[in-house]
Amino acid sequence: MTQKAGRRPGKQDTRSQIVRAASAVFAEAGYAAASIRGIAQRAGVDPALVHHYFDGKVSLFIEAMGLPGGMREVPAELRENPASGAVIVRAFLRLWDATADRPSPFLSLVQAVSSSPLAAESVREFIAERIRPPEADQKPSREWQVRQALIGSQLMGLAFQRYVMGAQPVATADPDQLAAWVGPAIDRYLHEPLPGLALPGLALPGLALDGDR
Amino acid sequence: MTQKAGRRPGKQDTRSQIVRAASAVFAEAGYAAASIRGIAQRAGVDPALVHHYFDGKVSLFIEAMGLPGGMREVPAELRENPASGAVIVRAFLRLWDATADRPSPFLSLVQAVSSSPLAAESVREFIAERIRPPEADQKPSREWQVRQALIGSQLMGLAFQRYVMGAQPVATADPDQLAAWVGPAIDRYLHEPLPGLALPGLALPGLALDGDR
Repeated sequence: MTQKAGRRPGKQDTRSQIVRAASAVFAEAGYAAASIRGIAQRAGVDPALVHHYFDGKVSLFIEAMGLPGGMREVPAELRENPASGAVIVRAFLRLWDATADRPSPFLSLVQAVSSSPLAAESVREFIAERIRPPEADQKPSREWQVRQALIGSQLMGLAFQRYVMGAQPVATADPDQLAAWVGPAIDRYLHEPLPGLALPGLALPGLALDGDR
Repeated sequence: MTQKAGRRPGKQDTRSQIVRAASAVFAEAGYAAASIRGIAQRAGVDPALVHHYFDGKVSLFIEAMGLPGGMREVPAELRENPASGAVIVRAFLRLWDATADRPSPFLSLVQAVSSSPLAAESVREFIAERIRPPEADQKPSREWQVRQALIGSQLMGLAFQRYVMGAQPVATADPDQLAAWVGPAIDRYLHEPLPGLALPGLALPGLALDGDR
């Protein structure tokens, strides 16, 4: 849920004002350097009011960038399983596929990140903070960065073909079908030896995803 | 080369007029249905004049969409080799990487195709006409379509990470390094059995790319 308890129709303006301020701050400072305090200041409200409407910076960023609300929580199947390519593909598509309520938000994301390098940087920082190496306090290794960027390349490209290019049969294929086709490519990036890495063949035990902070 | 012999400085306006007319016709009719005759009519010039400035529809589309000029010819290494994933990745990056003369044209492509479904459709039609099944007159099979869309997903996503998101180390990695990481994923889509296809395991002998027509 985006809003917490206590939201009333008359408060809509304050809420929108906070989202607009957040968009401006993320665009100028990026995601990592933006703070609730700075966003509150820009909106001309008390930080407590920002916390009243939003769970935190993650929720604000998701709303300001038009990202899928599902990005707030770690998908249940990624919590329960050691990450497998097919599971990741299915969770990714559930996040981005159009629903009865809304078109796919991927098109807006592509428009945003291709319109400004700062928007792309914010999204990159947002992803980097949310998908971390399995050891929580570990500095991301070069191997981790390589694998994450390559997994991202396959997932982004799948979404690009499905939601932007409308390339058949990817555009309308069943998520299970796509998971069967694309999952093994993700598995290779996750678990198999890749040339030129300092530690070829190190198997990553899984992905760690942060919940809202 | 974009222009043929005989171009003089004073003719620049006619040439630009033809490119603008081509952009309008491609945007309205798509790539496949657009014709040199229709573009000439829109520009208010004789079709012979279009042929004077441009080799054909391929060259006009490349210029109108801001695509890399290298898309006019089949990359030499794809002519000489049976297609391998690493060779395809290297040829793809040579096409889209920034050079001393120009930034990567991939960003403009992403802005264009994400701004209108018709632009995405034109690019799709352009690609479909240029990359065909090995047997020239063969109707593309479902298997061919699946493999082509999946190869496209990996290549588009690689470009998206490299040129739009700036995701490290993909953004600055050497093309040979990227070919070693991503090539095997392309090889699988090209040559290995994929679940759910009518003819699992049929190896495609190679890609056929058309030159300018």
